[in-house]
Amino acid sequence: MNSAEEQQPSSPPGNSWSKQEEINKNETPKCVGGFVLVHAGAGYHSESKAKEYKHVCKRACQRAVDRLKAGALAAEAVAAALVELEDSPFTNAGMGSNLNLSGEIECDASIMDGKSLHYGAVGAISGIKNPVLVANRLLSEAQKGKLSAGRIPPCFLVGRGAHDWAVGHGIPPCPSEKMATKFSLSAYKRNKRKMALAEKMDTGHNHAKKRRQSSETENGSGCLDTVGAVVVDSEGNVAAAVSSGGLAMKHPGRVGQAAHYGCGCWAENAFNNPYSTAVSTSGCGEHLIRTMLARECSAALQSEDAHKALLETMQNKFISSPFLAGEDRVLGGVIVLRCCRCVESPPSQNIQGILVEFLWSHTTESMCVGYMSAQDSKAKTHISRLPPGTVPGQCLAIEGGVCRLSVAE
Amino acid sequence: MNSAEEQQPSSPPGNSWSKQEEINKNETPKCVGGFVLVHAGAGYHSESKAKEYKHVCKRACQRAVDRLKAGALAAEAVAAALVELEDSPFTNAGMGSNLNLSGEIECDASIMDGKSLHYGAVGAISGIKNPVLVANRLLSEAQKGKLSAGRIPPCFLVGRGAHDWAVGHGIPPCPSEKMATKFSLSAYKRNKRKMALAEKMDTGHNHAKKRRQSSETENGSGCLDTVGAVVVDSEGNVAAAVSSGGLAMKHPGRVGQAAHYGCGCWAENAFNNPYSTAVSTSGCGEHLIRTMLARECSAALQSEDAHKALLETMQNKFISSPFLAGEDRVLGGVIVLRCCRCVESPPSQNIQGILVEFLWSHTTESMCVGYMSAQDSKAKTHISRLPPGTVPGQCLAIEGGVCRLSVAE
Repeated sequence: MNSAEEQQPSSPPGNSWSKQEEINKNETPKCVGGFVLVHAGAGYHSESKAKEYKHVCKRACQRAVDRLKAGALAAEAVAAALVELEDSPFTNAGMGSNLNLSGEIECDASIMDGKSLHYGAVGAISGIKNPVLVANRLLSEAQKGKLSAGRIPPCFLVGRGAHDWAVGHGIPPCPSEKMATKFSLSAYKRNKRKMALAEKMDTGHNHAKKRRQSSETENGSGCLDTVGAVVVDSEGNVAAAVSSGGLAMKHPGRVGQAAHYGCGCWAENAFNNPYSTAVSTSGCGEHLIRTMLARECSAALQSEDAHKALLETMQNKFISSPFLAGEDRVLGGVIVLRCCRCVESPPSQNIQGILVEFLWSHTTESMCVGYMSAQDSKAKTHISRLPPGTVPGQCLAIEGGVCRLSVAE
Repeated sequence: MNSAEEQQPSSPPGNSWSKQEEINKNETPKCVGGFVLVHAGAGYHSESKAKEYKHVCKRACQRAVDRLKAGALAAEAVAAALVELEDSPFTNAGMGSNLNLSGEIECDASIMDGKSLHYGAVGAISGIKNPVLVANRLLSEAQKGKLSAGRIPPCFLVGRGAHDWAVGHGIPPCPSEKMATKFSLSAYKRNKRKMALAEKMDTGHNHAKKRRQSSETENGSGCLDTVGAVVVDSEGNVAAAVSSGGLAMKHPGRVGQAAHYGCGCWAENAFNNPYSTAVSTSGCGEHLIRTMLARECSAALQSEDAHKALLETMQNKFISSPFLAGEDRVLGGVIVLRCCRCVESPPSQNIQGILVEFLWSHTTESMCVGYMSAQDSKAKTHISRLPPGTVPGQCLAIEGGVCRLSVAE
């Protein structure tokens, strides 16, 4: 197997997944392990903390690959990667999340399983160390069918109700004060001061000016380190997940894209489409919601050239989206993968592997990613940066690679 | 002007909105008043209560038309219709909403403005009489631009935070006990008994059986009376809104489609598209979320034949959606409108009116709708029912009409 290389993704072979599935109706060829791509946020990653961000991405990839090697399906592996990303105090998810206006932590997370097309999400949840595990549990409970008395199980829970449901399903509560870090607390204090100063400076100005000209909180300068991952497993199933502490100094109860269906993540096995796709987004939640970026990327990835499709989507459906016409800076990033069955050499044997194309793109200053296939000895990590001299929110970077998963012997 | 007639919508004239907008760049021809279509839920409407449902639809239409005649834009008019629908104790929205598992009322609502493409939503909000007014306020605050210190205003708030934000913005709180009605309280007690019985009967059975075979709550039999409205104003702007008390006996914190972007409502003026479209959905929230039905309908309505487009969307993207493959009954309904500029007679004068096509469709036993143009003396109301012998959740009804708004003299 070729290990994952950073290179321009090539077009996949002509054999589409759906066609090949027909041929292989009675056999689901298992490939070796699977593949995972993670990110530790689209935002600004200082050189001084680069090592930490890369390290957590590496660990997250390893966690997912460990699960894949143990035979886990994509949804379980993607949740495992997210737990590692949430547990890092350096990311804005789970432990170390941004504090809201009241100094509390409220998290959003969601997960989507491309095989069942089920989805689970939590919004503005407090006192749970790993919000993605609640989302994942919602997903798996929904897959079991109706509740007693014919009630339909929820796919999205928020606030106190989400917390209580989680605890009722065996997920241990975690005191909120344990989830704040020295870093998140000091950022909160700095932001408080900035807001007080901004409001003081605005006194005497008119309302419109006040709204537009104030100095920015640390969100404005790029602390948007939502985390996410996309996975394909040995059977070719895809899954995606996302988790976020949300914008710093957000209003209590604010829910961002990480809990929004179609906005934070998307995963869809190839049923009638040529490709299976998985997407996870990061950045300014309101921009990602209003452009429904995860689902847009997934739909675009069905066209022949993945790189071109993602580039055009980021340009036309995000930076220049009519939905964000009034915004001066559109900040966000995505990781995507798509895969299809491909014939291995020698083609005469008609043995099929899985061709995985993976990409990341961002309009923020930087985005930290990691990726690994089950045959790699360790994950590769990378901090992607906008080209020098370009303006965040108006320009984008795009990179990626391809990886072939061989059939298990 | 022709008043709105129930008839098969015809194809609009060849002149598309976008083309005509170019011609009329410097003049926005104002038409008389505008048009509103409302619904009081897709579910089951007994003959005994038919009069009440029709009456509230009539009042809601009148409220919207009053605002339109006073010069209000579509978003304001659609919110006014929703307030009337929420205030009725017969609908499952605002006053008289379903109670959740804990016997509390938690509401979802959202609104979308086709002109600005802004969106506001609240989820699982308690103690506010008119949740749509909070959603509308979020929308209008977001349109003003950034908050102090460069913070991005929220478009979606949930739970306690949503309630506090509303009160902080001058929307008066309402004690929850005042929002429950004799009807909603007695339904809660009946559902409690049904659940207890179902769980008792299940004792000794295995888990899978328990999940699938229990008797149904009143949701199962069709009490899904979410409300909604779609409006076009005299300038041709569209807006849509939706409000719901959610499923009876839902888990606290559960958020349904009414607060989900792209799922509960959608409104999009014709920018690069031939038509402006507005959609509002009702029914089983989880089904409407996972199929993203509002946005799907809106996209489909850009094709030439609106009736055919909606029919195919309801069949292929809802009843037979791969996202709901495991569901035996897919319950929901939509109201839609689309409009474009059209040349009035005599065509030589090149005066343009607005041609409005409006439709409703549902897979539930019935759906109560009302519609009115600003030139009508009163609203028309109708309870649409599935054809006799057809199975709810597997078949659908579809009806609609056309209406021409003349240019004001």
